[in-house]
Amino acid sequence: MGGMEIQIAVAKTNKYAVTDSGDTIEVVERPNGGLSVVLADGQTSGRGAKAVSMMVVRKVIGLLAEGVRDGAAARAASDLLYTEKQGKVTSTLNILSVDLHTGTVVITRNNPIPFYVARGERIDCIGEESKSIGTARNTRPVISEIPLEPGMMLVVYTDGLVHAGERKGNPMDVCTSLKAMREGQDPSPQAVADALLSEAVNLDDGRPADDISVVALKVLKHTGDDVRRMTVRLPVNVR
Amino acid sequence: MGGMEIQIAVAKTNKYAVTDSGDTIEVVERPNGGLSVVLADGQTSGRGAKAVSMMVVRKVIGLLAEGVRDGAAARAASDLLYTEKQGKVTSTLNILSVDLHTGTVVITRNNPIPFYVARGERIDCIGEESKSIGTARNTRPVISEIPLEPGMMLVVYTDGLVHAGERKGNPMDVCTSLKAMREGQDPSPQAVADALLSEAVNLDDGRPADDISVVALKVLKHTGDDVRRMTVRLPVNVR
Repeated sequence: MGGMEIQIAVAKTNKYAVTDSGDTIEVVERPNGGLSVVLADGQTSGRGAKAVSMMVVRKVIGLLAEGVRDGAAARAASDLLYTEKQGKVTSTLNILSVDLHTGTVVITRNNPIPFYVARGERIDCIGEESKSIGTARNTRPVISEIPLEPGMMLVVYTDGLVHAGERKGNPMDVCTSLKAMREGQDPSPQAVADALLSEAVNLDDGRPADDISVVALKVLKHTGDDVRRMTVRLPVNVR
Repeated sequence: MGGMEIQIAVAKTNKYAVTDSGDTIEVVERPNGGLSVVLADGQTSGRGAKAVSMMVVRKVIGLLAEGVRDGAAARAASDLLYTEKQGKVTSTLNILSVDLHTGTVVITRNNPIPFYVARGERIDCIGEESKSIGTARNTRPVISEIPLEPGMMLVVYTDGLVHAGERKGNPMDVCTSLKAMREGQDPSPQAVADALLSEAVNLDDGRPADDISVVALKVLKHTGDDVRRMTVRLPVNVR
């Protein structure tokens, strides 16, 4: 299939007036090449939720680093959470893996909310029933596999995005927003993640009712050099 | 000290004609807020070196996630490598941690090569003697702590950067390059990391003699929103 460039962008904000986000997201290298993005949203918000989502993400990336397959890592994280919290605490989990051997993105999902795949004019909502982890034994993820091809874009997010605006009876419609953004344009994944997050924050009058994380993954034709790049921007308040 | 934005940029390339980089770098969230960048360069190159640097980085990020202090995590990684490889394999290790409680960046270094701190017109080379991990018991890191303040920039890299050009008797001088770049300008960390990497690759006639990773961390006044952002760009060849 030749040279491509994978671009992954993340935009993340906290629930209004809450310091700790209940969402945790990490991007890690896979032992056989490629990358995985691991995103968890722990139940409720604040410190407790943060500890849950960090535990889930750490378990998953530790196992991925050992070569464990994504589906098995998701099941292990569910069992760990179930055992640690006696089945009383739940978390969503999404794993996006760029697998260079199969030439696909593998999406492992324990999350009732769907994700989107855009190719050309078409936007598909992938929403087969899927349960969060931690509250039942034998919780299995739903796994989708999507070929890496230039022009393809994936959008995955935590439920804070789709709950935005609900208080005011004006909920966010991700598919419509994505369609509008892509009309006649070819936005970067950072532009897509930023625009979706910003729309959600506006629907909540600038005071997000929940933690929100948005991930956009885009495949492009490879035109530049062979350098891997990563940029992180972290607004901070130093006490 | 109020609002600031931390920007971290990474640029990374492999030794010419080698698929696996011996360098591993991960950026992870700290359990009490802030971020850590963990960079290891395993001895030699290719698959063996990759396995070593991944093992070292995984150990460190696993411990940081549990709240272990950076210095203790570095010592643990050294002991692990010493035990696993009977003291026969070495790796460099740099940990850069943005610590929001102390308002500093903590640099934990097991690496003979120095790093740079730029503030205003001044560029300091921090190069106290420091040993790589894995070949002796009780290998301790050198720890530096630098206050977070707008305008400060840190540049950390693996030795591939400074060995570039040596074959041709025209080695890279990072300090001079940094000075030239900053003269009358205020380059972004990605621009700095990209420029240093690109200069090194050019000195090696486009065929890097070693894996090269460059990290630039910059502190800015906070002007935008409270969104955390991350972008990853990964050139791939799908088989």
